Amino acid sequence: MSEYINVAVDAMGGDNAPAEVVKGAVEAVTESNKVKVFLVGREADVKAQLGRYDVPAGQIEIVDAPEVIETAEPPVEAIRSKKDSSIVKGMKLVKEGTCDAFVSAGSTGAVLVGGQILVGRIKGIQRAPLAPVIPTTSGVALLIDCGANVDARPSHLVQFARMGSIYMEHIMGVKNPRVGIVNIGAEEEKGNALVKETFPLLKACDDINFIGSVEARDIPSGGADVVVCEAFVGNVILKMYEGVGGALIQEVKKGMLSTLRSKIGALLVKPALKETLKAFDLEQYGGAPLLGLNGLVVKTHGSSKAVEVKNSILQCIAFKEQKINDRIREQIV
Amino acid sequence: MSEYINVAVDAMGGDNAPAEVVKGAVEAVTESNKVKVFLVGREADVKAQLGRYDVPAGQIEIVDAPEVIETAEPPVEAIRSKKDSSIVKGMKLVKEGTCDAFVSAGSTGAVLVGGQILVGRIKGIQRAPLAPVIPTTSGVALLIDCGANVDARPSHLVQFARMGSIYMEHIMGVKNPRVGIVNIGAEEEKGNALVKETFPLLKACDDINFIGSVEARDIPSGGADVVVCEAFVGNVILKMYEGVGGALIQEVKKGMLSTLRSKIGALLVKPALKETLKAFDLEQYGGAPLLGLNGLVVKTHGSSKAVEVKNSILQCIAFKEQKINDRIREQIV
Repeated sequence: MSEYINVAVDAMGGDNAPAEVVKGAVEAVTESNKVKVFLVGREADVKAQLGRYDVPAGQIEIVDAPEVIETAEPPVEAIRSKKDSSIVKGMKLVKEGTCDAFVSAGSTGAVLVGGQILVGRIKGIQRAPLAPVIPTTSGVALLIDCGANVDARPSHLVQFARMGSIYMEHIMGVKNPRVGIVNIGAEEEKGNALVKETFPLLKACDDINFIGSVEARDIPSGGADVVVCEAFVGNVILKMYEGVGGALIQEVKKGMLSTLRSKIGALLVKPALKETLKAFDLEQYGGAPLLGLNGLVVKTHGSSKAVEVKNSILQCIAFKEQKINDRIREQIV
Repeated sequence: MSEYINVAVDAMGGDNAPAEVVKGAVEAVTESNKVKVFLVGREADVKAQLGRYDVPAGQIEIVDAPEVIETAEPPVEAIRSKKDSSIVKGMKLVKEGTCDAFVSAGSTGAVLVGGQILVGRIKGIQRAPLAPVIPTTSGVALLIDCGANVDARPSHLVQFARMGSIYMEHIMGVKNPRVGIVNIGAEEEKGNALVKETFPLLKACDDINFIGSVEARDIPSGGADVVVCEAFVGNVILKMYEGVGGALIQEVKKGMLSTLRSKIGALLVKPALKETLKAFDLEQYGGAPLLGLNGLVVKTHGSSKAVEVKNSILQCIAFKEQKINDRIREQIV
């Protein structure tokens, strides 16, 4: 059925593959009749998992891929040598047009390299940034780039800002998203060489709502909707979210269990607290798109469970329906 | 009394000057008879505050400085033109040898610039990094550099690593401190150009305990004792501590007040929680030393209260007694 949005899914990627990946795929096609999933992986393993569910007819297909790229493998070599791996075969389905998107919880390095080499960038796009949605106290923001292109140039950051704007507006529904560049102070003359060069270029873009510098301190409270930065800095931001979040929650738990009085309090507080903190958990937000490619590639957490796989697959529907790549081609290139 | 450790203190610096600064100075000299404080600021204002306390004889002296450098002023210009400001006069006391150290809660930019221009670097030290102590779930770590020298070179980072090691060992009492370089992955081949170039240089240093890359995720849980990075990245790390911490605590409070049940629990949990979270509050850790100068310069938070001013002053005693600068001269230069 060619009216489906076709999503290739790396059935072997991540800590919980193939069981949780297959489960997530089944949940996605059960929830939406617009999508067809191509489960790419070791046929016998995938079939065994799939046998546990009732699957809507014609919405799931298995594509055999006997090889697996491990997280520790050097990505460029892995992509070149393992032609029969789930990542290479899944990406080729996008490249040849059979699929609109590819979702993987596997090796980040291999997904990034594969995206550039196999799927390929939209003509005119200089670099493809990885852009996860991150939680803020007022909603969410897009962090672009969080790890794909270290030592980026100013012209790359400008394209990131414009692609990020399109994504936030048309996928996340944020009207006229505020674009900020990560800086070490609010003033225009602050920053390192990259930021100082990029700042006036962003200021001159009349198709984005550039609000200037955003200090890292203001990102978690929603200081910008599109947070533009070079990949090394973006990676540090993302990992500090996890690191500080994890450490603080550990301290909160320790504090709550430190006295008898607080232990009783903890029992009362727990359900409400759990609910609130869930909104601040990075893993709730599905996968990070690798933007600017000839098709969509989504990287989900290595620790993804079925719900994140499902959300990542469903995210591909909006990407296709909102014609994000057509907009990128028209507005940027 | 020349056997005192003499500390010049910027009486006009920070949001709570001069009241809290003077109070902190009085508390410091009351707590330790080893230290003498030179309160540098508008004489009348300082005198008025000082009149409120009993001061140990001979341990506090006022140095009149009628000008004030504001936070928003361009630092280089301010240092050059405001010769009678508390920052310029305080630093000159260190330069000329009257004082061993200078403590300021004033303009970070002016303190950094003044440190380099007025106090001057130890001969052979290429850059003077700002190195705050940050909390971790297992104690503290030193973040070096957190904002003094953007676009640093590999040789700078190597000196940071060695100075940071000396500081952690002899001031914070961490034996053989583990030195890590902030990176976007644990493997040696990962990173941007700066990290890739610096990594083998650090590996070759036999006077430090280099443990390789540390991912930002692992900093809050104590992944390294000395966290080496370029200033832009360090600033992002420091500000993410504040930003994620602030946002999460806000969410925790919101969660606790969301139901009647959790509200009751919150009352019971509050005292214990407050105690634990205090240990994770950046502001508890006094000032950040600017290392590698001919004398010690300590930058405390702009929002410092008396307790932080006091801690920053007392910190100067250990710095002098442990002969940190002699060690830097011997081991590094």
